[in-house]
Amino acid sequence: MKTSAKVFLFLGILSAVHNVQAGEGSFQVLPEPQIYGGKPLMEALRDRQTVRSFSSKPIEPQVLSNMLWAAFGVNRRDEGKRTAPTALNKQNIDVYVLSSSGVWRYDAVNNRLILLSQTDLRPLLNSQDFATKAPVTLLYVAGNDIVSGMHAGSLYQNVGLFCASFGLNNVVRRMDKDKLTKALNLPEGKEVIVSQSVGYPD
Amino acid sequence: MKTSAKVFLFLGILSAVHNVQAGEGSFQVLPEPQIYGGKPLMEALRDRQTVRSFSSKPIEPQVLSNMLWAAFGVNRRDEGKRTAPTALNKQNIDVYVLSSSGVWRYDAVNNRLILLSQTDLRPLLNSQDFATKAPVTLLYVAGNDIVSGMHAGSLYQNVGLFCASFGLNNVVRRMDKDKLTKALNLPEGKEVIVSQSVGYPD
Repeated sequence: MKTSAKVFLFLGILSAVHNVQAGEGSFQVLPEPQIYGGKPLMEALRDRQTVRSFSSKPIEPQVLSNMLWAAFGVNRRDEGKRTAPTALNKQNIDVYVLSSSGVWRYDAVNNRLILLSQTDLRPLLNSQDFATKAPVTLLYVAGNDIVSGMHAGSLYQNVGLFCASFGLNNVVRRMDKDKLTKALNLPEGKEVIVSQSVGYPD
Repeated sequence: MKTSAKVFLFLGILSAVHNVQAGEGSFQVLPEPQIYGGKPLMEALRDRQTVRSFSSKPIEPQVLSNMLWAAFGVNRRDEGKRTAPTALNKQNIDVYVLSSSGVWRYDAVNNRLILLSQTDLRPLLNSQDFATKAPVTLLYVAGNDIVSGMHAGSLYQNVGLFCASFGLNNVVRRMDKDKLTKALNLPEGKEVIVSQSVGYPD
């Protein structure tokens, strides 16, 4: 196990990870996702709901890893294919993780989080209070077109079902994406097209 | 049980339903959806995949009902809320069912299919052979905008997970929507934004 992973696991909670140097190549390895369990699919669908309140309790790294894998993890290692389809298998959507420790990009192939910023950008979500209280907000970063919308819709639905299955609250919303897009210095043509705040019930 | 439901169940397969008069108010009541079972969520996600081949074996009404409920059924009867979220809970997306018996609109609130046409429109999907062989193709009908895209992406992901869970193949694709949109005489501002063919493995 790499040192960064040990530190990560030792610290136990993502929001406590403050000792990583930002810059090219800084990352945290995620715990191996647990690809089993959860409610039977029909019961996860029955329990899927939007809930706009959160405890500030952090999401454990194992749960975060499982949730990100559910969102858009590699589910067929030999083909590099994912938990949701994309047009022509381009996989042209990214999941970013906002927490108190900064901003991270989910690297599904290597099961790790790439550090993009050590700034807590959650205050930029503060048009509604609940979003700053949520320990994690996922950002779906892609083109501003209908097909990218479909991809985002699939990914946040995976997370919504994960939350229904494992006792987490979640809310999907469009927010002030311009502020965030600017703060994140996104590549040309990429935007934060939608966000999803996740946390334990209050 | 209403007579139409009895007839429906007696016939046993949707593609055998030919005795319905088209026109305002013609419908088939679906069997009550079975809201239990399926693989544990993480295993459904693990097994989610696109498969472009189908047996012509019809999809049984009970399975169709369960699948449509998974897609966008009412999961909280008292609030009228659904298995996937929509912006401001507008629920402004429809699922149409294309089969050999014609075209139907899923009426989730009343758990029935509204007959729109007795013409088999599957040949309009024939840019790729597999799509005409699939016993059922779902059409996602909504506005041509990124938020509608998100909604469609959530619904087809629900169906993709349903298929992974219950041994069905499925493929999502954008196709010649102009031909279909015209043939379906859709309301102003509505289009077939994406389709999903479903069937048993070949």
